[in-house]
Amino acid sequence: MKIIVSQINPTIGDICANTKKVIECIDLAIKQDVDLILFPELTLCGYPPEDLVLHESFINSMHEHLEQVVKVSKNIVVVVGLVRKNTSHGEKPLLNSACIIQDQKIIGFYEKWLLPTYDVFDERRYFEPGKTLFTFNLQGKKIGITICEDVWQHAGYVDRTKYPRDPIVELSKENIDLLLNLSASPYRFTKSDLRVEVCQKAARTLQAPVILCCQVGANTQIVFDGYSVFVDEKGDLRSLGKGFEEDQMLVDLQNPSPVLTKKKETLEDLYKALVLGVRDYFHKLGFTKACLGLSGGIDSALVCCIAREALGSQNIFAISMPSKYTSKQSKIDAEKLADNLGISFEEDCIDSLFTCFLENLSPFFKEKKGDVTEENLQARIRGMILMALSNKHGYITLSCSNKSEAALGYTTLYGDSCGGLGVIGDVLKTDVYRLCRWINREKEIIPSSILEKAPSAELRLDQKDTDTLPDYAILDKILMEYVENYLSMDEIIEKHNLPKELVWDIIRKIHLSEYKRRQSPPILRISKKAFGVGRRYPIVQNWL
Amino acid sequence: MKIIVSQINPTIGDICANTKKVIECIDLAIKQDVDLILFPELTLCGYPPEDLVLHESFINSMHEHLEQVVKVSKNIVVVVGLVRKNTSHGEKPLLNSACIIQDQKIIGFYEKWLLPTYDVFDERRYFEPGKTLFTFNLQGKKIGITICEDVWQHAGYVDRTKYPRDPIVELSKENIDLLLNLSASPYRFTKSDLRVEVCQKAARTLQAPVILCCQVGANTQIVFDGYSVFVDEKGDLRSLGKGFEEDQMLVDLQNPSPVLTKKKETLEDLYKALVLGVRDYFHKLGFTKACLGLSGGIDSALVCCIAREALGSQNIFAISMPSKYTSKQSKIDAEKLADNLGISFEEDCIDSLFTCFLENLSPFFKEKKGDVTEENLQARIRGMILMALSNKHGYITLSCSNKSEAALGYTTLYGDSCGGLGVIGDVLKTDVYRLCRWINREKEIIPSSILEKAPSAELRLDQKDTDTLPDYAILDKILMEYVENYLSMDEIIEKHNLPKELVWDIIRKIHLSEYKRRQSPPILRISKKAFGVGRRYPIVQNWL
Repeated sequence: MKIIVSQINPTIGDICANTKKVIECIDLAIKQDVDLILFPELTLCGYPPEDLVLHESFINSMHEHLEQVVKVSKNIVVVVGLVRKNTSHGEKPLLNSACIIQDQKIIGFYEKWLLPTYDVFDERRYFEPGKTLFTFNLQGKKIGITICEDVWQHAGYVDRTKYPRDPIVELSKENIDLLLNLSASPYRFTKSDLRVEVCQKAARTLQAPVILCCQVGANTQIVFDGYSVFVDEKGDLRSLGKGFEEDQMLVDLQNPSPVLTKKKETLEDLYKALVLGVRDYFHKLGFTKACLGLSGGIDSALVCCIAREALGSQNIFAISMPSKYTSKQSKIDAEKLADNLGISFEEDCIDSLFTCFLENLSPFFKEKKGDVTEENLQARIRGMILMALSNKHGYITLSCSNKSEAALGYTTLYGDSCGGLGVIGDVLKTDVYRLCRWINREKEIIPSSILEKAPSAELRLDQKDTDTLPDYAILDKILMEYVENYLSMDEIIEKHNLPKELVWDIIRKIHLSEYKRRQSPPILRISKKAFGVGRRYPIVQNWL
Repeated sequence: MKIIVSQINPTIGDICANTKKVIECIDLAIKQDVDLILFPELTLCGYPPEDLVLHESFINSMHEHLEQVVKVSKNIVVVVGLVRKNTSHGEKPLLNSACIIQDQKIIGFYEKWLLPTYDVFDERRYFEPGKTLFTFNLQGKKIGITICEDVWQHAGYVDRTKYPRDPIVELSKENIDLLLNLSASPYRFTKSDLRVEVCQKAARTLQAPVILCCQVGANTQIVFDGYSVFVDEKGDLRSLGKGFEEDQMLVDLQNPSPVLTKKKETLEDLYKALVLGVRDYFHKLGFTKACLGLSGGIDSALVCCIAREALGSQNIFAISMPSKYTSKQSKIDAEKLADNLGISFEEDCIDSLFTCFLENLSPFFKEKKGDVTEENLQARIRGMILMALSNKHGYITLSCSNKSEAALGYTTLYGDSCGGLGVIGDVLKTDVYRLCRWINREKEIIPSSILEKAPSAELRLDQKDTDTLPDYAILDKILMEYVENYLSMDEIIEKHNLPKELVWDIIRKIHLSEYKRRQSPPILRISKKAFGVGRRYPIVQNWL
């Protein structure tokens, strides 16, 4: 039996274009004499469609486009995902479904049992869990269907949830010969390994091969890395789809590829995830060009490299906006980086604008001393210049704030945090360094002085990040434990032997700066818990 | 039997202060020789606590504070809400619970059955539904407990949800003599009427009185109006708690107050909701002073009135920031309004800053014609001035964008939309007019020329809103139908006999401007479907 695992990159809500893509893949599979083609979760609308599914016409459109898929499915089995109306049971009016089509006939639907409702997932907001298994026969083989989360609990990887029924356990009584899974499983550092492990666990319990088809591509904040999986009945990994691009992976059940070792998670993957996140954000919105402020610091250097990789050097406009507080070295570094990357580069000194604001505001500042206000003014002038360029030339502005800064509110609202997309908003500062070193692994693309100098916002004389922030290695450790792992203050202090005042101060600042993050641009999510999508905290609260 | 319905205003997460308040209310009730005191849903942590409940120490703290409540409950029954760990059944590790304490002993817990997971509600993200009823006896009466949503399905008011089990139906077999309900039911125009209706329906089915205790106060974006309810066994309304303030409503079951007619929903309530929203946002965050830009237009006029009512005239700093495009009348109107309200008022012309930016940017604009860029620059200069004042003086900046503008993206990101709180971001422009007329009902507070002149952003010569936007009466009708009622384009066209191009253009703009709204400040929610909390759409999508 030959199977195509059709790892496609749908655009959310573009049911028409997604269906067209599905039909092209089916046509190609038929030409290759393939028996079955498997698509990712919610193929026709893309994942996650969010509140679009609340529009009846949206659901109707999916049903109509399914008919087109049925029509072309001649002499092939097609397994495709869509949202359906729930007319039978339970609380919610919709179902997260797989439709199984055999030779131009719908032979049945499977409804996802396990509906993740945590972190970035909101499936209980829309869907009713399925209650029945679905299996069908093809060439004497009994084939079972599952959707994404359905296979995860069995391997123990669900977040604060214990579903009462486990489809893998129940399928194990059905003696199936093959399990298919339609997935939309977001990228995060180390997760593609988990996905293989999850399939292995299911295969060993079922004593049957497992094929998992992943969505690829980025949808606003969530990046899907692809890496579809085929493991044999022993749980040995036999094929892995491409990472970060579409793939039509051919699986020949009778003649599987040789056993593969699991791939190692690499910085390259992290880099590719960010590149794909930028590329899809722009291209799916119909934009091609980006602008960003190049300060000569490490954050904007990294964002610039990512953006050039995603959009091409001809589509990046970088601007250095120095002030009297900007060091000569920063200006040199910014220009050198732009030169190394072959992108457009301009300089625009903000001193006269800054002076103009100080003069304008002086009647209202009177005897007040200089403080963070003047620093924020500079950051906001830069933000305004970038937004004006964006308005005038049709660029999307990229924000260069990193996760460590965003955590503590060490950013200026409407200043350095402004833009259409926060490219590295989920990347800790220590990982910013690691990624930059990786970019420079063969030759110096990012000038080494950018990597070597002490980080500074350069908003006042001789300012250093360490004036206000602890060492980034320590800060990032605390952030990981508190934000991603939900350790309590006491647990962090004990585990890492850190002073109480420090840990307390950081946790306090995380909560106090919630209001800034609420207004930040969408952030590409690459960690277990990103600021932005998947993390919901009240601004007005007084815990601690 | 005498009961206190303790309609309190908790602060989210301030378990310590909330518990203190609960204990004070219990002490007072004991002094009044009351038999039972009923608190709102999730009393100890406030509603909605969001992801704070994912911290184990947060849950532990609630358990510890519950002990304090138990201790003081001498000779009284206390019904109080909290989050508990779920150690028994189902998918989720937490329970939305009511604890029933009688004379210093916990006699049991009831767990909420119906968990709303739509609009602003995310309860399935955290909680497992309860499965068992809880009743107890007091003075020979059998008393049942429910929590908020539990009573709503029976009256037919749940959104796209049909819970398989209905606690009112099941309680009707229990022959109870009284039903208690702990609620946190958000304000919206016309909803307090619904709440009475819901209680009446339950009372008639149960043939027993129903007492519903509502949380009051605002928590970030959601306003809770109070108006706790007591209906007798026939469903007649006997007592209604105060609106928009705390209340300790005494109910004497044997000697109920005379029958009340249901209250009419009024503009006054809408106004009070916004006032409470502003007041609690500031005071719960520890702020007292607000600044805002007073343009001489109707939106900032309304926000200014609301802010003065919420914070006091001595705490409002209003600034007019005219440009060469600002009419003389607008300047006069702004000053007159400030004068009428007795607030600080200053003027700060932005022309020189605007010129400074145009000069600075000219090398990058070259042969490009003037367009929306120059308009946005002006709005952003104003935003920067407001944020600088906010930084320097500790104000929170109020945003004056209304819902009609926000819907179509007729605002400048980081410009007029900037600030800590979007006061009227959920108020349609036509309702802005209605509220202003209501404010002027007895005497002219808002200068009549503000109400009479054609709306304009005054960002270019002789600009009028109608240059770009349809008449607000038509626009608001379409927004209501599409955003709040989920009608399709075709349904709107047919129902209101409107041209297709117009409806299509508006719907298209709603989706295209999602990216702007994503970065807007929190918005006080007063409608069925606000932009902001409770509405989740992808930025990157291509439906339509």
